[in-house]
Amino acid sequence: MSDKKQVEQITSMEEDFAQWYTDVVKKADLIDYTSVKGCMVFKPAGYAIWELIQKQMDERFKQCGVENVYLPMFIPESLLEKEKDHVEGFAPEVAWVTHGGLQPLQERMCVRPTSETLFCDFYKNEVHSYRDLPKVYNQWCSVVRWEKETRPFLRSREFLWQEGHTIHATFEEAEERTIQMLNLYADFCEQVLAIPVVKGRKTDKEKFAGAEATYTIEALMHDGKALQSGTSHNFGNGFAKAFDIQFTDKDNTLKYPYQTSWGTTTRLIGAIIMVHGDDNGLVLPPKVAPVQVVIVPIRQQQEGVLEKAEEIKSELAKAGIRVKIDDTDKSPGWKFAEAEMRGIPVRIEIGPKDIEAGKAVLARRDSGEKTECALDGIAEKVAGLLDTIQSDMLEKARARRDSQTYTAKTKEEFNQLFAEKSGFVRAMWCGDVECENEIKEKLSVTSRCMPFEQEEVSDVCVCCSRPAKKLVYWGRAY
Amino acid sequence: MSDKKQVEQITSMEEDFAQWYTDVVKKADLIDYTSVKGCMVFKPAGYAIWELIQKQMDERFKQCGVENVYLPMFIPESLLEKEKDHVEGFAPEVAWVTHGGLQPLQERMCVRPTSETLFCDFYKNEVHSYRDLPKVYNQWCSVVRWEKETRPFLRSREFLWQEGHTIHATFEEAEERTIQMLNLYADFCEQVLAIPVVKGRKTDKEKFAGAEATYTIEALMHDGKALQSGTSHNFGNGFAKAFDIQFTDKDNTLKYPYQTSWGTTTRLIGAIIMVHGDDNGLVLPPKVAPVQVVIVPIRQQQEGVLEKAEEIKSELAKAGIRVKIDDTDKSPGWKFAEAEMRGIPVRIEIGPKDIEAGKAVLARRDSGEKTECALDGIAEKVAGLLDTIQSDMLEKARARRDSQTYTAKTKEEFNQLFAEKSGFVRAMWCGDVECENEIKEKLSVTSRCMPFEQEEVSDVCVCCSRPAKKLVYWGRAY
Repeated sequence: MSDKKQVEQITSMEEDFAQWYTDVVKKADLIDYTSVKGCMVFKPAGYAIWELIQKQMDERFKQCGVENVYLPMFIPESLLEKEKDHVEGFAPEVAWVTHGGLQPLQERMCVRPTSETLFCDFYKNEVHSYRDLPKVYNQWCSVVRWEKETRPFLRSREFLWQEGHTIHATFEEAEERTIQMLNLYADFCEQVLAIPVVKGRKTDKEKFAGAEATYTIEALMHDGKALQSGTSHNFGNGFAKAFDIQFTDKDNTLKYPYQTSWGTTTRLIGAIIMVHGDDNGLVLPPKVAPVQVVIVPIRQQQEGVLEKAEEIKSELAKAGIRVKIDDTDKSPGWKFAEAEMRGIPVRIEIGPKDIEAGKAVLARRDSGEKTECALDGIAEKVAGLLDTIQSDMLEKARARRDSQTYTAKTKEEFNQLFAEKSGFVRAMWCGDVECENEIKEKLSVTSRCMPFEQEEVSDVCVCCSRPAKKLVYWGRAY
Repeated sequence: MSDKKQVEQITSMEEDFAQWYTDVVKKADLIDYTSVKGCMVFKPAGYAIWELIQKQMDERFKQCGVENVYLPMFIPESLLEKEKDHVEGFAPEVAWVTHGGLQPLQERMCVRPTSETLFCDFYKNEVHSYRDLPKVYNQWCSVVRWEKETRPFLRSREFLWQEGHTIHATFEEAEERTIQMLNLYADFCEQVLAIPVVKGRKTDKEKFAGAEATYTIEALMHDGKALQSGTSHNFGNGFAKAFDIQFTDKDNTLKYPYQTSWGTTTRLIGAIIMVHGDDNGLVLPPKVAPVQVVIVPIRQQQEGVLEKAEEIKSELAKAGIRVKIDDTDKSPGWKFAEAEMRGIPVRIEIGPKDIEAGKAVLARRDSGEKTECALDGIAEKVAGLLDTIQSDMLEKARARRDSQTYTAKTKEEFNQLFAEKSGFVRAMWCGDVECENEIKEKLSVTSRCMPFEQEEVSDVCVCCSRPAKKLVYWGRAY
């Protein structure tokens, strides 16, 4: 397509994956950089993806009894310090507010890096009896972590997220909620984002500061690197003890309640880009595509062409499809390339000859496939095509993920795989943090999770050769 | 109703309006206080109102071409300082971040009190040609202003809001958008919140820091005090000059573009409480009621009662009504009082006798009126009733507002009205800030706005008796 060169080329994935990512993020018009170092602007095309994620995830939350709340963005230092592991994990990377207006504050406050401590402070007022339990709360907000190295969506000083915080009468109920929300995330990634994930438990080394157990969903990017895409934590009653939250149970004795938290972030947008994107730019799964269909009129100045495009548009819109017409004065080739760059799942081409023949051309962004489609009943056809694309994208991503997932039985195999390949390596581990440290140091590889689906691929640890306890997914990670 | 005393009484409005407000806010379970001074927790019942406001306002935004974005929460000091009036207005009340992690920052940053400066910084990258204009952006976020005196929803150190920021090729287009958004706000308040407002322009004394013109919607609370409920600003090209934003126009010359901003906040929830509430608690307009209908089963232990309640619930839910059953073990009287406290628009009472007679009792929260309703077709009946309540609440609020709006022709009348009455006083003004200052000092009264609907109620200023220029709405304000 000769017009294609009119659209600025992006670096190819093969050549430089990191540069490809940056190019796509910029040229698909998702973000802009700002004067605020390490922070970014979500432009309309980027923020609209987040809105679609929010909407669909929030519906799922509400279906399982989650209620939304909003807590302050500031945490007084004394509150942050109450839980020992937690403050050690977060204090080095928070932003501190020291002045309000012209006055220094009596006590400095950090901008929330996460809100466990605030929720504890809140629950202390709210929870007195077993009748007050459980509370299943969530908030959509932004948080701040003072990262040194930042990358759009993947790691920035401020990011958008949701954080769920629940409190329960028993450990079992808290554990059940922890797993329930992890499953919700996994299902959401597969069904909405078309991203297959591995579900599992983090090792103690990798778990959240203050948690008893952290569960995670891990996705594999196009370059074979892992991305932690959502986590769910069971805190046991450690926070309750640190914050002295107690309730009178049915048996009339005072007990400490059990807590959980779980979160996903705008990092999911990074995952969408790196799982589905290609050398022509972004490829969006239909369920999170702000524009699902772009209609490109051919010879649009000819009588009847734009009118027909409008007709198709309103038919599609009526069927609940997010559709727009590109009637700018650019050439069709330019428009095609631009729509590809922005990842729009379906393009409809319609010109005078098509109209005469009572048909249009449908082009799929994911596969490049072009088919003809009768104008009569086009909305139904396109709706079906969007469903097909959604499920094909998941299958394609799953096939790639599987082809990049290896199994190592010995230390030698393990080291060789990471020397030659990129991807997940499934291998046994003895359970000792020393082995995790050694693997990280020598190979820059971390334990991603101990998958729920355990299997004994060998009987010795791939690091120390002592008896193995757990199957672990290992990988290099973002 | 003897059970009523079981529900903690709230202070009556007549006795102490401020205490009544605090009681309602707490006992309707909208908010909680926290360890963070001047900030509050939005509890589920409070946050759900904001979600309904957001959803319905955002739909209206999108219908008029607004696109959502998200900009950083931090503003470097040098950026805040670029527009002189703006920094003078805001610098005294911002929170300053001075440390990131363990390191002091090279340049301190404030947490955004509003984002004009960030949008300018962003637009400077985005706007180069007339083809790039207009941009009509909005963000939903929280902002921080270091207030000394705080009150839930009305004034807090952190609050939730939306801020629209647009940029245009001409002054006229900017002015048109400024007024368009003010009209959108006014319409939203009337149609969704059932709150009548006066639309007008702020005097120079009361306008936004950095604006050429500020327009406002002013509502009147139950106690006769005014509440500024939304504002829309035309900045001219002052910010563009301060930030050196220029574009090449069609005539190939460089020009400064024109900007606007417009915002509404969680303060609207305060307005709902103070316009519609009564001595039994909150009264929510159906369109922003998280629960629109509560079903209270009478003798719920008798066979068939809860089943019938469930049947009604699912019928109503199918009709798109937000409905719940109160099947707790409290007495019906307690449940009635609690539903009233929480402002639920319609209560359905259903007991064995009702079921036998094939009917239920519908009780309106706004008027207290009770009617019988056949179970057959109850969903349609209730949907109609919710519409009636919505429009009746607006009319009732309008009638009260009108009855508390006075006109003063002379200084004497003006002073006497504010000595004896609470409400809006319409009176003429010479245009001189000295008169505004004098009125504020002597009567604690401010100019709320110069209404769009001007009228000459007399020909002299009510302060200095010189020739009058403008009709002004005056009032004591929150």
